[in-house]
Amino acid sequence: MPKAIYAGSFDPITNGHLWVIDRAAAIFDELIVAVGDNPDKNYSFSLDERLGLLKETLHQYKNIEIGHFNGEFLVNYAQGVGASFIVRGIRNTQDYEYEKTMRYINSDLCSTIDTIFLMPPRNYAEVSSSLVKGLVGTAGWEKIVKRYVPETVLDALKVKNGS
Amino acid sequence: MPKAIYAGSFDPITNGHLWVIDRAAAIFDELIVAVGDNPDKNYSFSLDERLGLLKETLHQYKNIEIGHFNGEFLVNYAQGVGASFIVRGIRNTQDYEYEKTMRYINSDLCSTIDTIFLMPPRNYAEVSSSLVKGLVGTAGWEKIVKRYVPETVLDALKVKNGS
Amino acid sequence: MPKAIYAGSFDPITNGHLWVIDRAAAIFDELIVAVGDNPDKNYSFSLDERLGLLKETLHQYKNIEIGHFNGEFLVNYAQGVGASFIVRGIRNTQDYEYEKTMRYINSDLCSTIDTIFLMPPRNYAEVSSSLVKGLVGTAGWEKIVKRYVPETVLDALKVKNGS
Amino acid sequence: MPKAIYAGSFDPITNGHLWVIDRAAAIFDELIVAVGDNPDKNYSFSLDERLGLLKETLHQYKNIEIGHFNGEFLVNYAQGVGASFIVRGIRNTQDYEYEKTMRYINSDLCSTIDTIFLMPPRNYAEVSSSLVKGLVGTAGWEKIVKRYVPETVLDALKVKNGS
Amino acid sequence: MPKAIYAGSFDPITNGHLWVIDRAAAIFDELIVAVGDNPDKNYSFSLDERLGLLKETLHQYKNIEIGHFNGEFLVNYAQGVGASFIVRGIRNTQDYEYEKTMRYINSDLCSTIDTIFLMPPRNYAEVSSSLVKGLVGTAGWEKIVKRYVPETVLDALKVKNGS
Amino acid sequence: MPKAIYAGSFDPITNGHLWVIDRAAAIFDELIVAVGDNPDKNYSFSLDERLGLLKETLHQYKNIEIGHFNGEFLVNYAQGVGASFIVRGIRNTQDYEYEKTMRYINSDLCSTIDTIFLMPPRNYAEVSSSLVKGLVGTAGWEKIVKRYVPETVLDALKVKNGS
Repeated sequence: MPKAIYAGSFDPITNGHLWVIDRAAAIFDELIVAVGDNPDKNYSFSLDERLGLLKETLHQYKNIEIGHFNGEFLVNYAQGVGASFIVRGIRNTQDYEYEKTMRYINSDLCSTIDTIFLMPPRNYAEVSSSLVKGLVGTAGWEKIVKRYVPETVLDALKVKNGS
Repeated sequence: MPKAIYAGSFDPITNGHLWVIDRAAAIFDELIVAVGDNPDKNYSFSLDERLGLLKETLHQYKNIEIGHFNGEFLVNYAQGVGASFIVRGIRNTQDYEYEKTMRYINSDLCSTIDTIFLMPPRNYAEVSSSLVKGLVGTAGWEKIVKRYVPETVLDALKVKNGS
Repeated sequence: MPKAIYAGSFDPITNGHLWVIDRAAAIFDELIVAVGDNPDKNYSFSLDERLGLLKETLHQYKNIEIGHFNGEFLVNYAQGVGASFIVRGIRNTQDYEYEKTMRYINSDLCSTIDTIFLMPPRNYAEVSSSLVKGLVGTAGWEKIVKRYVPETVLDALKVKNGS
Repeated sequence: MPKAIYAGSFDPITNGHLWVIDRAAAIFDELIVAVGDNPDKNYSFSLDERLGLLKETLHQYKNIEIGHFNGEFLVNYAQGVGASFIVRGIRNTQDYEYEKTMRYINSDLCSTIDTIFLMPPRNYAEVSSSLVKGLVGTAGWEKIVKRYVPETVLDALKVKNGS
Repeated sequence: MPKAIYAGSFDPITNGHLWVIDRAAAIFDELIVAVGDNPDKNYSFSLDERLGLLKETLHQYKNIEIGHFNGEFLVNYAQGVGASFIVRGIRNTQDYEYEKTMRYINSDLCSTIDTIFLMPPRNYAEVSSSLVKGLVGTAGWEKIVKRYVPETVLDALKVKNGS
Repeated sequence: MPKAIYAGSFDPITNGHLWVIDRAAAIFDELIVAVGDNPDKNYSFSLDERLGLLKETLHQYKNIEIGHFNGEFLVNYAQGVGASFIVRGIRNTQDYEYEKTMRYINSDLCSTIDTIFLMPPRNYAEVSSSLVKGLVGTAGWEKIVKRYVPETVLDALKVKNGS
């Protein structure tokens, strides 16, 4: 009965994240999608907003639970909630290098938790929350951003942007 | 009830392969470990020998089935046996680049099968069947190769080498 | 009036090549598309067949000339035909590393010729002549290969394959 | 009659930039060299100073026009000024990864604009505006920086540095 | 009688640094271990604390001298103290790319000083001062951090953390 | 009194090799330059010819000894001749990945031998014996190859080529 965790800032959740979540939910009996909330970082969406967007976007998945954590390493949080696998997306070589480092550090921190990696489809391979936020407000951004995020998030971005 | 496939030449199976298999068997309900047999390649172990070594090494896993294929793309074989996930190991940047290419080609060939990736522990990150075969016969090779392969394989290598 | 050259084995030409050619023809006044024919290599299509497929595929471009060369470095051939730029496609990190090496060697060989690089669209980023040839003959290959090559080439592959 | 754009902070322009501009001006009928001015960034040289240095350095090129933009994506600015190609320099693997991401995002934003890439000669492959600014003020910096920037820029750096 | 220099922030020194120092001290007749102190950076340990930790950790090496520098490039400091080699550790592709750039820049700055590179053992290949500092204070951090730093540093981290 | 080894096919020795040898000879008290002779490989120059070219090229170095080996791993040969360091050149990312793998395998094989890495100057960063051999016989090759190899080797290549 393997339980897995997929964590991120989700500021906001993108179609790239959603694809990883959808695939992970097909693999694991239980999937925890956890919002990391680092008090030293500035977010565009508050923790509550991010949790709300996740809930709306993921409500149709029966085996997904939404959580959040801060002030600890992901692997420690994973251990606390009984997950035995961490799920991570890899989009490019830079992601790969970073994930490799974290995979080994995580094993040092907790040897009973392993990491599995997924690569999003070509059309989402360059999408990131930062890209999405960078696009908001530029000419005709809604048409572009629509490809990268679910409708709920697009609406929330429009509200933030006052458009 | 996701079924997955892990394929390779396994000429011979190494501890790196075994680690991937062990983790994949913990994730998926059913795992097919399939020997790819390319008639244009020279193998050190025949198809029967490779299947035999896999059987001996993996007999304690209840959810593993052993198969073999040739003359077709892995993703087509996977589809034929009802697997919905392909499992692949990534050891280094070169592996990563190759696997990324294959992941996208495989999606073109069959859009309903996805690939998940695992990274072996540090101590197996440089192990390959070719390395093992290159070591056989050099001074004191048994002591080194012992770290890289299961005992059954070490014995088989000794027999091949006449030592 | 810059003249450029795009060279390759084109065994056979793919949609990835075609995209590069189309873009290069939009940039340069004159573009030479040159088939490299290395006597030490085995080709699936003869030099004449490859030249024929290029001609059929590229006949609508007014500023493209088709050529061929062997036994010399591309940069020397380029110099001989009066080209001042070499055009190359980069699909991935491995291509990038190879192209970087060649770009500097080519400058050593001929300091007046420079190289420009293009990256094919996502959907062609994994296509290669080898991939195409590897697919021919597998179950339902026509449907897949159709995405990767122009119709003329698909027909030629069917004839080769006796299908 | 293809028109291209080459954009950057140019804070200040280096010999690496100049090499790219020189080659792009030899390829395209018209080249716009555009200073990106991001209000959230701190520059060593004001927008006017950077435009002034570009004008002095590039005045002998008949087909170069100098522009500037802020608050929009490069590809949108490119579209506005009628450019159909973006020119980018790639110095190393890190640049390559970044440029690949931007190339695909730019195609999503505007499918009629393509990007071409150039690799500066070996001797400029490590030069950047940041490096140059980091060197200013260290012992004997003028002698070193002289290799990396045009004379006009060296003079401007000396004035800034009060030397 | 080659003299070498190994420099860093050492905020704090890790077992990865120590391994490089130990190997460099076995290669060179004299090794200077130099603390770079950049006034624009925030350090967890003051310059004096960092020098103190180095002294305690390295006192058994007869051919090591400890130094510090700021406001100048490493290669200029190296020249001033009569070193003819710079020693650098490479842990991953990202380090490699950065070090390659610096190696060539350093040669431009001072052609008589060369750089040698060492790769730490697998178990230290992900260790960095930042990682160590990020771990301090998380649940059970002492047990983990113990693997990555010498005892003296662990004690100093406990004091800092008030634990 | 550290002794080091630098090994290769040296088929033939290039200026890139020579640079590494020159630097290694400046670092280590004793340096063994060893020709690896793999009976399964085809060489352009026989073992005797390669040893002869090395002797001619390196005779002025008092602390260099020339050797050769076959049928064993470099690290085992190194151990046999009492070397405690292996010297390797890294020219690009591909070299780096390969060298990282070998560095860890070598430590598995013999934990008392470490590897140090050097990066050749920019102008030699693309040179290889294969490149040199590929150039021989093309139009005006002597002028180009002259930059990449010592004079003795150029003469030997001319004799081989009958020019």
